[in-house]
Amino acid sequence: MRLKSKDLISTEDLSRDEIELLISTAESFKEISERDIKKVPTLRGRTIINLFYESSTRTRTSFEIAAKRMSADAINISTSSSSVVKGETLRDTAKNLEAMNPDCLVVRHSSSGTPNILAKYLRCSVINAGDGAHEHPSQALLDLFTVREAKGRIEGLKVAIVGDITNSRVARSNIHALGKMGAEVRVVGPPTMIPMDIDSMGCSVFHDLKDAIVDVDVIIMLRIQMERQKAPSFPSVREYSALYGLDGKKLEKAPKDVVILHPGPINRGVEITPEVADGPCSLILDQVKNGIAMRMAIFYLLIGGAREEG
Amino acid sequence: MRLKSKDLISTEDLSRDEIELLISTAESFKEISERDIKKVPTLRGRTIINLFYESSTRTRTSFEIAAKRMSADAINISTSSSSVVKGETLRDTAKNLEAMNPDCLVVRHSSSGTPNILAKYLRCSVINAGDGAHEHPSQALLDLFTVREAKGRIEGLKVAIVGDITNSRVARSNIHALGKMGAEVRVVGPPTMIPMDIDSMGCSVFHDLKDAIVDVDVIIMLRIQMERQKAPSFPSVREYSALYGLDGKKLEKAPKDVVILHPGPINRGVEITPEVADGPCSLILDQVKNGIAMRMAIFYLLIGGAREEG
Amino acid sequence: MRLKSKDLISTEDLSRDEIELLISTAESFKEISERDIKKVPTLRGRTIINLFYESSTRTRTSFEIAAKRMSADAINISTSSSSVVKGETLRDTAKNLEAMNPDCLVVRHSSSGTPNILAKYLRCSVINAGDGAHEHPSQALLDLFTVREAKGRIEGLKVAIVGDITNSRVARSNIHALGKMGAEVRVVGPPTMIPMDIDSMGCSVFHDLKDAIVDVDVIIMLRIQMERQKAPSFPSVREYSALYGLDGKKLEKAPKDVVILHPGPINRGVEITPEVADGPCSLILDQVKNGIAMRMAIFYLLIGGAREEG
Repeated sequence: MRLKSKDLISTEDLSRDEIELLISTAESFKEISERDIKKVPTLRGRTIINLFYESSTRTRTSFEIAAKRMSADAINISTSSSSVVKGETLRDTAKNLEAMNPDCLVVRHSSSGTPNILAKYLRCSVINAGDGAHEHPSQALLDLFTVREAKGRIEGLKVAIVGDITNSRVARSNIHALGKMGAEVRVVGPPTMIPMDIDSMGCSVFHDLKDAIVDVDVIIMLRIQMERQKAPSFPSVREYSALYGLDGKKLEKAPKDVVILHPGPINRGVEITPEVADGPCSLILDQVKNGIAMRMAIFYLLIGGAREEG
Repeated sequence: MRLKSKDLISTEDLSRDEIELLISTAESFKEISERDIKKVPTLRGRTIINLFYESSTRTRTSFEIAAKRMSADAINISTSSSSVVKGETLRDTAKNLEAMNPDCLVVRHSSSGTPNILAKYLRCSVINAGDGAHEHPSQALLDLFTVREAKGRIEGLKVAIVGDITNSRVARSNIHALGKMGAEVRVVGPPTMIPMDIDSMGCSVFHDLKDAIVDVDVIIMLRIQMERQKAPSFPSVREYSALYGLDGKKLEKAPKDVVILHPGPINRGVEITPEVADGPCSLILDQVKNGIAMRMAIFYLLIGGAREEG
Repeated sequence: MRLKSKDLISTEDLSRDEIELLISTAESFKEISERDIKKVPTLRGRTIINLFYESSTRTRTSFEIAAKRMSADAINISTSSSSVVKGETLRDTAKNLEAMNPDCLVVRHSSSGTPNILAKYLRCSVINAGDGAHEHPSQALLDLFTVREAKGRIEGLKVAIVGDITNSRVARSNIHALGKMGAEVRVVGPPTMIPMDIDSMGCSVFHDLKDAIVDVDVIIMLRIQMERQKAPSFPSVREYSALYGLDGKKLEKAPKDVVILHPGPINRGVEITPEVADGPCSLILDQVKNGIAMRMAIFYLLIGGAREEG
C-alpha cells in the first residue's frame, strides 16, 4: 500500500483514508523503537537525503533515526556546508541530488512552497519537513497519532490551537489534518496572530484562552517563533505570556482529561509553564517518541516495497 | 585488480590502462544505483573518512553515497568541526585519523599538494577530492566515463575546455586524463586565464570560443570561481559571459552532436545559459549520476578485495 | 557483564575491578580494527547519539567509528545545528532526544557537571566525552590501557602529569583512575596551574619538570588549552615552554624506557617538541588507536547484551 502521491508536501493534500493509513502504520512501527534491536531491514538499500536549509535538531534527528531504523542510508546536508554558498539555484541543487538516485529527499526551507516546487521537478519522493509558514505535515501527523493514542479517536474531538496561527506551519498542517478527521478546531490568539482567511479553513476563533479551552479535549500550544516574525505581533513577551501562555491556573478551566501538545522546542515560561509542560496532561514527549514511528511510516508508505515506474 | 598506487592524487599519475580500468569498473557499477536495493556488500567493514577543508555539497555527498552503496562506513569531518581550530598541523590530524584504522581518507583542501603530502605520510589510501588549483582526479574520471558513454570512445575526440584554465583543478585533471586517452585538447579563455606552461601539457590554445568549438566533439565548461581568484582575471562578469559564456547562439557554431559538460555547480547566465545547460547536448546531470559510479569504482580499486601488506 | 552504573561520567566513580574490566575488554576488541572487515554485529540496532556542545574532531570521530564498528547506528548532533540556538534548555534537549529511544548519549559540554545532570534525568546511558574542567573518563581509560600495554602493569608505576592541572579534565580523570590502579601520581606545573586541593587527590606536587621525571615510568603531557583559560596562568607561551615543555634535553633526565602520552591535539613546540612527540618513547598514536577499542568496550559494557529493565 502506498500514498496516492509520490510526495508528502501538505496535510491539505491528504485524504482521510491516507491519514488513517499513516496513523495505523505508525502505530504498528512504534514497538520497533522499544526493542533491544531497533532495526528492521524494510528499507535496506534505499537512500534518503535530509536537505535542511534551516537548522533543526529534533526534526532532522527524528527523520535520520527513522531512516536508520528502517535500514535506509541517510545522508545529511545542511545549508552551512551546501553549495548554496556557491550561488547555485535550489532547482539545480535538487536536480543534482536527484541524479545521485536518492529514493527520498526530506526538505526544510524558510520559503513556503519550496518542497512543492522541488516535488514537481523531481522524480524521487519529496517530504516537506517544514516550509516557511506553510506546512509541516509530519508534525501534524504525529500530533494526530498522539491524540488518537490518548483519546482513542479524533472524530468529534474539540481541539484548541493556541498562539501565532498566522506564522505557524504546524497550525496550518494540524488544521487541515484535524478537519479531515472530523475534529472541531478552534484557533486562539491575539487578532494580530490570526490569519484573515481562517474562516475558510473551518475554524472558530477565540481571543480569550480561558473561554477557548473550557470544554476542549486537546490543546496544542504553539511555539513563539521570534525567528519567523519580521515585526513582532505583540507588545511584549510578558504580555503574550500573561494572556496566552498556558499555566496551571488557566489550565484549571479546561476539563480534567484534557491533553496538551507542543511541537517543541518549548520556551518554558513563555507559551507554557514548567508545571504544565511536565505535568500529567502533557503529551510533549510522547509526540517526540511518536515522531520516529510516524516518520518510519511516511518513508514506508512513500518508498517502501518494490518501485513501480510510471 | 587494483591500481598501481595505494592513492588517487592526480590523473597525471595514472596510466592509460588504469584510466580504462576505472571507467570500465564504473560502468559495471552504474546499475547498482538504479536498483531498488542500491547496496552491495563489497566494502562492508571498511572505514572511509571524508576530510573536507573546503565546503562542498556535491563532491562530499557523492563520495558518501558511493561509500554507503558499497556498504562501507563513512565518517564526515568538515573544517568547521575539526580540530584545525585548535591549531593542530595537517600532518598531525592525518596521523591521528590514520591511527583510527580507516581504509581510505578522502581529502579536499584549498592548498595544492596537500593530498600528495598526506599520501606520503599515511599507510591508508588517500583520494584527492580537489586540492587548490592542482587536480580533482575523480571529477576528470567521471567526465571521461560520461564522454565515453556518449561518444563510444575517447581516443581521437576533439575536446574544448573553456574558462579559467589557470585556476581550475578540473581542467588540469581533464587535460592529463584526456591526453593519455588520445583525445585532442584545446583550452579556451582570455590570455589571463591560460597558464604559461600550457604547451608542455599538449594543448592548443584558443582565445575565441566560436573558433575553438567549430569542429569539437566535447565542450567542458568551467565554473567561474570567484572564491579562488585573488585578483579577478577579467574586467567584469558581463564581459566574460559575452565572450566565453556558452549560449545557444555560440553553440550553433559547434557540430550538432557536440556534448557539453560542466563540473557544477553552474552559474546560470555566467558561463552557461539555461537553454544550453538544460538543452539536449548537456550531459551535466549524467556527470553527477556517473560520479557515484566512478567513486564506487575508485573505492573498489583502491581498497576492495583482501589487503596485501607490502 | 556490565558496569555497575548505567552511565560513564567519571573515573572517580569507577572501581578498580571496573577499570580492569574496561581495559581487558578494550584489549580483546583491539584486533577488530586491524581486520579487513572491521565490523562486528554486537550492537546492531542500538542507537548512539553524539551530542557535542564543543567542537571536536578526534573524540567525536573516535566514538562514531567505535559505534559503527560495533554495528550501532550513530547520530551526530553538534551545537551549530542544534536547537540550542532556539533557546531550549539542556534538560529539554536531552529529554527530547531520550524520547527517540537512543541506547546511549555521548555528551561533551563546556560546563562541568552537565553529563552528570543529564544522567540523572535520563534512563538511557550517558557517556561523558568531556565536561569543562571536570572529567574526560574515556580519555583516561584509553591512557591506562595504553600504559598497561606498554608496561605490562599499572600498579606501582610512577606517573608524572605535566601542565595545567587545574583546568584539565584529562588530568583529573587520570589522577583518579591511576590512583585506583595503584600508580603513584605526580603533578607537575607552575603553582598557578596546580589546584589547591591536590593533596586530597593523593598526588605529590612538583614545580620542576626535570626533578619530577627523573625516575618515572610514564609522562602524560597536557595540552595548553588557551580556549579554557579566562586569564592566562603564565606570563608567556615561550616561558611556559622553556620550563614545562618536554624537549629532548629534558627527556634525558628521565629513565630510558619512559613512555610519553598526550591526549592531543598537540601544540608542537609548546608543551612538546617534535623530536619527543615523534620519538621512540611517544605513545601518542597508540593512544588514538586504543581510543577506538576503549570506546567500543565502553559501549559494550554499558549497552551490550540484552537490556534488563530495573
